[in-house]
Amino acid sequence: MEGIDGCGKSTQATLLQDKLKKNKIPFISIREPGGTAAGESIRQILLQTGYSLTAEAELLLYMAARSELSRQVITPALISGKIVLCDRFTDSTIAYQGYGSGIELQWINALNWKATGGRLPDLTFLLDLSVEEAALRRGSAADRMEKKDFYYHQRVHQGYLAIARREPERVMVFDAAVQAEIICSNIWQTLSKFIDNRTKMGSKHEF
Amino acid sequence: MEGIDGCGKSTQATLLQDKLKKNKIPFISIREPGGTAAGESIRQILLQTGYSLTAEAELLLYMAARSELSRQVITPALISGKIVLCDRFTDSTIAYQGYGSGIELQWINALNWKATGGRLPDLTFLLDLSVEEAALRRGSAADRMEKKDFYYHQRVHQGYLAIARREPERVMVFDAAVQAEIICSNIWQTLSKFIDNRTKMGSKHEF
Repeated sequence: MEGIDGCGKSTQATLLQDKLKKNKIPFISIREPGGTAAGESIRQILLQTGYSLTAEAELLLYMAARSELSRQVITPALISGKIVLCDRFTDSTIAYQGYGSGIELQWINALNWKATGGRLPDLTFLLDLSVEEAALRRGSAADRMEKKDFYYHQRVHQGYLAIARREPERVMVFDAAVQAEIICSNIWQTLSKFIDNRTKMGSKHEF
Repeated sequence: MEGIDGCGKSTQATLLQDKLKKNKIPFISIREPGGTAAGESIRQILLQTGYSLTAEAELLLYMAARSELSRQVITPALISGKIVLCDRFTDSTIAYQGYGSGIELQWINALNWKATGGRLPDLTFLLDLSVEEAALRRGSAADRMEKKDFYYHQRVHQGYLAIARREPERVMVFDAAVQAEIICSNIWQTLSKFIDNRTKMGSKHEF
Protein backbone atom coordinates (compact mmCIF):
# COMPACT_ATOMS: atom_id res chain seq x y z
CA MET A 1 0.00 0.00 0.00
CA GLU A 2 1.59 3.25 -1.12
CA GLY A 3 0.78 6.95 -1.35
CA ILE A 4 1.46 10.31 0.25
CA ASP A 5 0.55 10.89 3.91
CA GLY A 6 -3.18 11.41 4.31
CA CYS A 7 -4.17 9.43 1.22
CA GLY A 8 -6.06 6.85 3.27
CA LYS A 9 -3.60 3.95 3.38
CA SER A 10 -4.47 2.97 6.94
CA THR A 11 -8.20 2.92 6.22
CA GLN A 12 -7.66 0.75 3.18
CA ALA A 13 -5.33 -1.54 5.07
CA THR A 14 -8.03 -2.10 7.70
CA LEU A 15 -10.71 -2.73 5.08
CA LEU A 16 -8.47 -5.15 3.19
CA GLN A 17 -7.69 -7.04 6.38
CA ASP A 18 -11.43 -7.53 6.91
CA LYS A 19 -11.78 -8.94 3.40
CA LEU A 20 -8.85 -11.32 3.89
CA LYS A 21 -10.24 -12.49 7.23
CA LYS A 22 -13.71 -12.99 5.80
CA ASN A 23 -12.23 -15.05 2.95
CA LYS A 24 -10.07 -17.05 5.37
CA ILE A 25 -6.87 -16.13 3.57
CA PRO A 26 -3.84 -16.29 5.87
CA PHE A 27 -2.02 -12.96 6.00
CA ILE A 28 0.08 -10.65 8.11
CA SER A 29 -0.15 -6.88 8.16
CA ILE A 30 2.89 -4.68 8.77
CA ARG A 31 3.91 -1.07 8.54
CA GLU A 32 7.14 0.66 7.58
CA PRO A 33 9.32 1.80 9.19
CA GLY A 34 8.87 -0.63 12.08
CA GLY A 35 7.50 -4.13 12.56
CA THR A 36 10.52 -5.46 14.46
CA ALA A 37 12.01 -4.50 17.82
CA ALA A 38 14.92 -2.63 16.22
CA GLY A 39 12.63 -1.32 13.50
CA GLU A 40 10.32 0.34 16.01
CA SER A 41 13.30 2.05 17.65
CA ILE A 42 14.42 3.24 14.22
CA ARG A 43 10.89 4.46 13.55
CA GLN A 44 11.14 6.60 16.68
CA ILE A 45 14.37 8.20 15.48
CA LEU A 46 12.89 8.86 12.04
CA LEU A 47 9.58 10.30 13.11
CA GLN A 48 10.61 12.18 16.25
CA THR A 49 10.16 15.82 15.41
CA GLY A 50 13.28 16.87 17.34
CA TYR A 51 16.00 15.44 15.11
CA SER A 52 17.20 17.26 11.99
CA LEU A 53 18.51 14.28 10.07
CA THR A 54 20.49 14.58 6.87
CA ALA A 55 18.72 13.04 3.86
CA GLU A 56 21.43 10.38 3.59
CA ALA A 57 21.10 9.32 7.24
CA GLU A 58 17.32 9.22 6.90
CA LEU A 59 17.66 6.97 3.86
CA LEU A 60 20.04 4.59 5.63
CA LEU A 61 17.75 4.36 8.66
CA TYR A 62 14.76 3.44 6.52
CA MET A 63 16.87 0.79 4.84
CA ALA A 64 18.09 -0.64 8.13
CA ALA A 65 14.49 -1.01 9.33
CA ARG A 66 13.53 -2.58 5.99
CA SER A 67 16.38 -5.05 6.14
CA GLU A 68 15.24 -6.23 9.56
CA LEU A 69 11.62 -6.46 8.48
CA SER A 70 12.44 -8.35 5.30
CA ARG A 71 14.55 -11.04 6.89
CA GLN A 72 12.77 -11.41 10.21
CA VAL A 73 9.13 -10.97 9.22
CA ILE A 74 8.36 -10.83 5.49
CA THR A 75 10.44 -13.75 4.23
CA PRO A 76 9.26 -16.19 6.96
CA ALA A 77 5.63 -15.19 6.31
CA LEU A 78 5.92 -15.70 2.55
CA ILE A 79 7.64 -19.04 3.06
CA SER A 80 4.71 -20.19 5.16
CA GLY A 81 2.34 -19.18 2.35
CA LYS A 82 0.89 -16.04 3.89
CA ILE A 83 -0.09 -12.83 2.13
CA VAL A 84 2.03 -9.92 3.40
CA LEU A 85 0.11 -6.67 3.53
CA CYS A 86 2.61 -3.85 3.88
CA ASP A 87 1.86 -0.20 4.64
CA ARG A 88 4.74 1.41 2.69
CA PHE A 89 7.74 -0.42 1.24
CA THR A 90 10.46 0.13 -1.38
CA ASP A 91 8.43 2.60 -3.46
CA SER A 92 8.08 4.95 -0.49
CA THR A 93 11.83 5.41 -0.41
CA ILE A 94 11.99 6.05 -4.15
CA ALA A 95 9.17 8.59 -3.87
CA TYR A 96 10.20 10.36 -0.63
CA GLN A 97 13.99 10.16 -0.47
CA GLY A 98 14.46 9.97 -4.24
CA TYR A 99 11.92 12.28 -5.89
CA GLY A 100 11.28 14.22 -2.67
CA SER A 101 14.77 14.75 -1.21
CA GLY A 102 16.70 14.39 -4.44
CA ILE A 103 18.86 11.36 -3.60
CA GLU A 104 20.01 9.48 -6.70
CA LEU A 105 17.44 6.82 -7.67
CA GLN A 106 20.14 4.35 -8.67
CA TRP A 107 21.62 4.51 -5.18
CA ILE A 108 18.22 3.96 -3.58
CA ASN A 109 17.59 0.99 -5.88
CA ALA A 110 20.92 -0.52 -4.84
CA LEU A 111 20.05 -0.08 -1.18
CA ASN A 112 16.53 -1.45 -1.69
CA TRP A 113 18.02 -4.49 -3.37
CA LYS A 114 20.39 -5.10 -0.46
CA ALA A 115 17.75 -4.48 2.20
CA THR A 116 15.14 -6.79 0.68
CA GLY A 117 17.41 -9.37 -0.87
CA GLY A 118 16.00 -8.33 -4.25
CA ARG A 119 12.34 -8.93 -3.44
CA LEU A 120 9.77 -6.47 -4.77
CA PRO A 121 6.06 -6.48 -3.88
CA ASP A 122 3.97 -8.68 -6.22
CA LEU A 123 1.29 -6.00 -6.26
CA THR A 124 1.39 -2.37 -5.20
CA PHE A 125 -1.76 -0.33 -4.64
CA LEU A 126 -1.02 3.37 -5.05
CA LEU A 127 -3.67 5.61 -3.51
CA ASP A 128 -3.53 8.77 -5.55
CA LEU A 129 -4.57 12.02 -3.93
CA SER A 130 -3.63 15.67 -4.52
CA VAL A 131 -1.22 17.21 -2.03
CA GLU A 132 -3.80 19.86 -1.13
CA GLU A 133 -6.50 17.32 -0.38
CA ALA A 134 -4.09 15.13 1.60
CA ALA A 135 -3.03 18.11 3.73
CA LEU A 136 -6.66 18.89 4.53
CA ARG A 137 -7.29 15.30 5.56
CA ARG A 138 -4.17 15.10 7.73
CA GLY A 139 -5.17 18.14 9.76
CA SER A 140 -2.59 19.38 12.23
CA ALA A 141 -1.01 16.28 13.79
CA ALA A 142 2.11 16.22 11.65
CA ASP A 143 5.24 14.17 12.39
CA ARG A 144 8.72 15.09 11.14
CA MET A 145 8.22 13.66 7.64
CA GLU A 146 4.82 15.27 7.25
CA LYS A 147 6.05 18.74 8.20
CA LYS A 148 8.15 19.12 5.06
CA ASP A 149 6.89 21.72 2.67
CA PHE A 150 4.28 21.70 -0.05
CA TYR A 151 6.69 21.41 -2.98
CA TYR A 152 8.41 18.48 -1.31
CA HIS A 153 5.10 16.63 -1.16
CA GLN A 154 4.39 17.61 -4.75
CA ARG A 155 7.65 15.96 -5.83
CA VAL A 156 6.77 12.86 -3.81
CA HIS A 157 3.35 12.72 -5.43
CA GLN A 158 4.83 13.05 -8.91
CA GLY A 159 7.43 10.46 -8.00
CA TYR A 160 4.77 7.93 -7.16
CA LEU A 161 3.07 8.51 -10.50
CA ALA A 162 6.40 8.10 -12.28
CA ILE A 163 6.92 4.73 -10.59
CA ALA A 164 3.45 3.63 -11.65
CA ARG A 165 4.16 4.64 -15.26
CA ARG A 166 7.41 2.67 -15.25
CA GLU A 167 5.87 -0.48 -13.77
CA PRO A 168 2.18 -0.60 -14.74
CA GLU A 169 1.99 -4.38 -14.21
CA ARG A 170 2.98 -4.18 -10.58
CA VAL A 171 1.75 -0.75 -9.52
CA MET A 172 -1.98 -0.06 -9.75
CA VAL A 173 -3.24 3.47 -9.25
CA PHE A 174 -6.54 4.14 -7.44
CA ASP A 175 -8.27 7.49 -7.08
CA ALA A 176 -8.14 8.09 -3.34
CA ALA A 177 -10.67 10.92 -3.47
CA VAL A 178 -13.63 8.55 -3.89
CA GLN A 179 -15.38 6.63 -1.10
CA ALA A 180 -13.19 4.25 0.88
CA GLU A 181 -15.54 1.30 0.24
CA ILE A 182 -15.35 1.82 -3.51
CA ILE A 183 -11.56 1.93 -3.44
CA CYS A 184 -11.43 -1.19 -1.32
CA SER A 185 -13.74 -3.12 -3.62
CA ASN A 186 -11.57 -2.18 -6.60
CA ILE A 187 -8.39 -3.19 -4.79
CA TRP A 188 -10.03 -6.43 -3.70
CA GLN A 189 -10.93 -7.30 -7.30
CA THR A 190 -7.24 -7.17 -8.23
CA LEU A 191 -5.97 -8.83 -5.09
CA SER A 192 -8.47 -11.70 -5.07
CA LYS A 193 -7.68 -12.43 -8.72
CA PHE A 194 -3.98 -12.54 -7.85
CA ILE A 195 -4.67 -14.92 -4.96
CA ASP A 196 -6.86 -17.16 -7.13
CA ASN A 197 -4.19 -17.40 -9.82
CA ARG A 198 -1.57 -18.22 -7.27
CA THR A 199 -3.75 -20.95 -5.80
CA LYS A 200 -4.55 -22.41 -9.24
CA MET A 201 -0.87 -22.52 -10.15
CA GLY A 202 -0.45 -24.45 -6.92
CA SER A 203 2.69 -22.55 -6.21
CA LYS A 204 3.72 -20.50 -3.27
CA HIS A 205 6.55 -18.05 -3.47
CA GLU A 206 9.73 -19.31 -5.01
CA PHE A 207 12.92 -18.88 -3.00
CA MET B 1 41.91 5.40 16.35
CA GLU B 2 41.16 1.82 15.40
CA GLY B 3 41.49 -1.68 16.79
CA ILE B 4 39.52 -4.55 18.31
CA ASP B 5 37.60 -4.00 21.56
CA GLY B 6 39.93 -4.00 24.52
CA CYS B 7 43.00 -2.84 22.58
CA GLY B 8 43.25 0.38 24.57
CA LYS B 9 41.73 2.93 22.19
CA SER B 10 40.01 4.91 24.92
CA THR B 11 43.20 5.17 26.99
CA GLN B 12 45.15 6.36 23.97
CA ALA B 13 42.44 8.82 23.02
CA THR B 14 42.63 10.36 26.51
CA LEU B 15 46.42 10.55 26.42
CA LEU B 16 46.38 12.09 22.96
CA GLN B 17 43.86 14.68 24.04
CA ASP B 18 46.23 15.71 26.85
CA LYS B 19 49.05 16.13 24.34
CA LEU B 20 46.88 18.23 22.04
CA LYS B 21 45.71 20.41 24.92
CA LYS B 22 49.27 20.89 26.21
CA ASN B 23 50.38 21.93 22.73
CA LYS B 24 47.40 24.25 22.32
CA ILE B 25 46.23 22.53 19.16
CA PRO B 26 42.50 22.99 18.60
CA PHE B 27 40.71 19.65 18.29
CA ILE B 28 37.48 17.79 18.89
CA SER B 29 37.17 14.22 20.10
CA ILE B 30 34.33 11.96 19.00
CA ARG B 31 33.33 8.34 19.11
CA GLU B 32 31.48 6.06 16.73
CA PRO B 33 28.71 5.19 16.63
CA GLY B 34 27.32 8.34 18.22
CA GLY B 35 28.35 11.96 18.51
CA THR B 36 25.03 13.43 17.37
CA ALA B 37 21.52 13.26 18.85
CA ALA B 38 20.34 10.72 16.28
CA GLY B 39 23.73 8.98 16.39
CA GLU B 40 23.45 8.32 20.11
CA SER B 41 19.99 6.82 19.63
CA ILE B 42 21.42 4.62 16.88
CA ARG B 43 24.28 3.66 19.20
CA GLN B 44 21.70 2.44 21.70
CA ILE B 45 20.03 0.23 19.11
CA LEU B 46 23.39 -1.18 17.99
CA LEU B 47 24.87 -1.89 21.39
CA GLN B 48 21.75 -2.94 23.32
CA THR B 49 22.22 -6.60 24.06
CA GLY B 50 18.55 -7.43 23.49
CA TYR B 51 18.30 -6.97 19.72
CA SER B 52 19.40 -9.68 17.30
CA LEU B 53 20.11 -7.51 14.28
CA THR B 54 20.86 -8.88 10.83
CA ALA B 55 24.36 -8.04 9.59
CA GLU B 56 22.90 -5.87 6.84
CA ALA B 57 20.75 -3.83 9.24
CA GLU B 58 23.72 -3.41 11.59
CA LEU B 59 25.81 -2.12 8.68
CA LEU B 60 23.15 0.37 7.60
CA LEU B 61 22.73 1.68 11.14
CA TYR B 62 26.46 2.30 11.51
CA MET B 63 26.40 4.14 8.22
CA ALA B 64 23.42 6.27 9.20
CA ALA B 65 25.22 7.35 12.38
CA ARG B 66 28.38 8.05 10.37
CA SER B 67 26.51 10.14 7.84
CA GLU B 68 25.11 12.31 10.62
CA LEU B 69 28.47 12.63 12.32
CA SER B 70 30.29 13.49 9.10
CA ARG B 71 27.99 16.26 8.00
CA GLN B 72 27.03 17.71 11.35
CA VAL B 73 30.27 17.43 13.30
CA ILE B 74 33.38 16.35 11.37
CA THR B 75 33.08 18.58 8.32
CA PRO B 76 32.33 21.78 10.30
CA ALA B 77 35.28 21.04 12.64
CA LEU B 78 37.69 20.47 9.76
CA ILE B 79 36.51 23.63 8.04
CA SER B 80 37.30 25.61 11.18
CA GLY B 81 40.81 24.13 11.19
CA LYS B 82 40.43 21.68 14.06
CA ILE B 83 41.97 18.25 14.41
CA VAL B 84 39.25 15.60 14.59
CA LEU B 85 40.17 12.72 16.87
CA CYS B 86 37.79 9.84 16.14
CA ASP B 87 37.40 6.65 18.16
CA ARG B 88 36.49 4.26 15.28
CA PHE B 89 35.56 5.31 11.77
CA THR B 90 35.35 3.79 8.27
CA ASP B 91 37.94 1.07 8.94
CA SER B 92 35.88 -0.33 11.82
CA THR B 93 33.10 -1.16 9.40
CA ILE B 94 35.48 -2.81 6.96
CA ALA B 95 37.02 -4.85 9.77
CA TYR B 96 33.86 -5.78 11.71
CA GLN B 97 31.04 -5.94 9.18
CA GLY B 98 33.33 -6.84 6.25
CA TYR B 99 36.00 -9.22 7.51
CA GLY B 100 34.04 -10.15 10.65
CA SER B 101 30.48 -10.63 9.38
CA GLY B 102 31.34 -11.37 5.76
CA ILE B 103 29.58 -8.49 4.03
CA GLU B 104 31.09 -7.65 0.63
CA LEU B 105 33.91 -5.10 1.03
CA GLN B 106 32.95 -3.30 -2.17
CA TRP B 107 29.47 -2.66 -0.80
CA ILE B 108 30.86 -1.33 2.47
CA ASN B 109 33.22 0.95 0.56
CA ALA B 110 30.32 2.32 -1.45
CA LEU B 111 28.36 2.99 1.74
CA ASN B 112 31.39 4.55 3.45
CA TRP B 113 31.81 6.83 0.48
CA LYS B 114 28.19 7.95 0.62
CA ALA B 115 28.19 8.37 4.40
CA THR B 116 31.35 10.45 4.55
CA GLY B 117 31.09 12.24 1.24
CA GLY B 118 34.31 10.47 0.24
CA ARG B 119 36.45 11.67 3.14
CA LEU B 120 38.92 9.21 4.68
CA PRO B 121 40.97 9.88 7.83
CA ASP B 122 44.34 11.56 7.12
CA LEU B 123 45.98 9.28 9.65
CA THR B 124 44.76 6.10 11.28
CA PHE B 125 46.40 4.64 14.36
CA LEU B 126 45.74 0.93 14.57
CA LEU B 127 46.31 -0.52 18.04
CA ASP B 128 47.25 -4.11 17.41
CA LEU B 129 46.52 -6.67 20.11
CA SER B 130 45.83 -10.42 20.03
CA VAL B 131 42.22 -11.47 20.49
CA GLU B 132 43.14 -13.49 23.58
CA GLU B 133 44.86 -10.56 25.27
CA ALA B 134 42.04 -8.18 24.35
CA ALA B 135 39.46 -10.57 25.84
CA LEU B 136 41.43 -10.72 29.10
CA ARG B 137 41.58 -6.93 29.26
CA ARG B 138 37.87 -6.49 28.55
CA GLY B 139 36.87 -8.72 31.42
CA SER B 140 33.17 -9.51 31.66
CA ALA B 141 31.33 -6.30 30.77
CA ALA B 142 30.55 -7.16 27.16
CA ASP B 143 28.04 -5.34 24.96
CA ARG B 144 26.31 -6.93 21.99
CA MET B 145 29.22 -6.45 19.57
CA GLU B 146 31.77 -7.73 22.08
CA LYS B 147 29.81 -10.92 22.81
CA LYS B 148 30.43 -12.36 19.36
CA ASP B 149 32.65 -15.39 19.30
CA PHE B 150 36.41 -15.82 19.25
CA TYR B 151 36.72 -16.57 15.54
CA TYR B 152 34.68 -13.52 14.68
CA HIS B 153 37.15 -11.36 16.56
CA GLN B 154 40.02 -13.20 14.90
CA ARG B 155 38.61 -12.28 11.50
CA VAL B 156 38.20 -8.66 12.61
CA HIS B 157 41.79 -8.60 13.83
CA GLN B 158 43.10 -10.02 10.56
CA GLY B 159 40.90 -7.59 8.68
CA TYR B 160 42.52 -4.65 10.40
CA LEU B 161 45.96 -5.92 9.47
CA ALA B 162 44.85 -6.38 5.86
CA ILE B 163 43.68 -2.76 5.75
CA ALA B 164 47.05 -1.61 7.13
CA ARG B 165 48.90 -3.64 4.47
CA ARG B 166 46.78 -2.11 1.72
CA GLU B 167 47.22 1.48 2.93
CA PRO B 168 50.55 1.73 4.77
CA GLU B 169 50.75 5.50 4.24
CA ARG B 170 47.52 6.19 6.06
CA VAL B 171 47.28 3.34 8.56
CA MET B 172 50.05 3.02 11.15
CA VAL B 173 50.19 -0.09 13.31
CA PHE B 174 51.24 0.12 16.98
CA ASP B 175 51.85 -2.81 19.30
CA ALA B 176 49.14 -2.37 21.90
CA ALA B 177 50.71 -4.86 24.31
CA VAL B 178 53.40 -2.38 25.44
CA GLN B 179 52.95 0.40 28.02
CA ALA B 180 50.29 2.98 27.19
CA GLU B 181 52.76 5.89 27.59
CA ILE B 182 55.15 4.34 25.04
CA ILE B 183 52.35 3.84 22.52
CA CYS B 184 51.17 7.40 23.05
CA SER B 185 54.62 8.87 22.56
CA ASN B 186 54.99 6.92 19.29
CA ILE B 187 51.60 8.04 18.06
CA TRP B 188 52.38 11.60 19.05
CA GLN B 189 55.60 11.56 17.00
CA THR B 190 53.58 10.79 13.88
CA LEU B 191 50.69 13.08 14.68
CA SER B 192 52.81 16.10 15.63
CA LYS B 193 54.84 15.72 12.43
CA PHE B 194 51.59 15.68 10.44
CA ILE B 195 50.36 18.79 12.23
CA ASP B 196 53.70 20.60 11.66
CA ASN B 197 53.65 19.80 7.96
CA ARG B 198 50.11 21.00 7.63
CA THR B 199 50.98 24.25 9.40
CA LYS B 200 54.09 24.79 7.23
CA MET B 201 52.11 24.24 4.07
CA GLY B 202 49.81 26.93 5.43
CA SER B 203 46.85 24.95 4.29
CA LYS B 204 43.89 23.69 6.12
CA HIS B 205 41.74 20.96 4.69
CA GLU B 206 40.62 21.40 1.12
CA PHE B 207 36.92 21.19 0.43
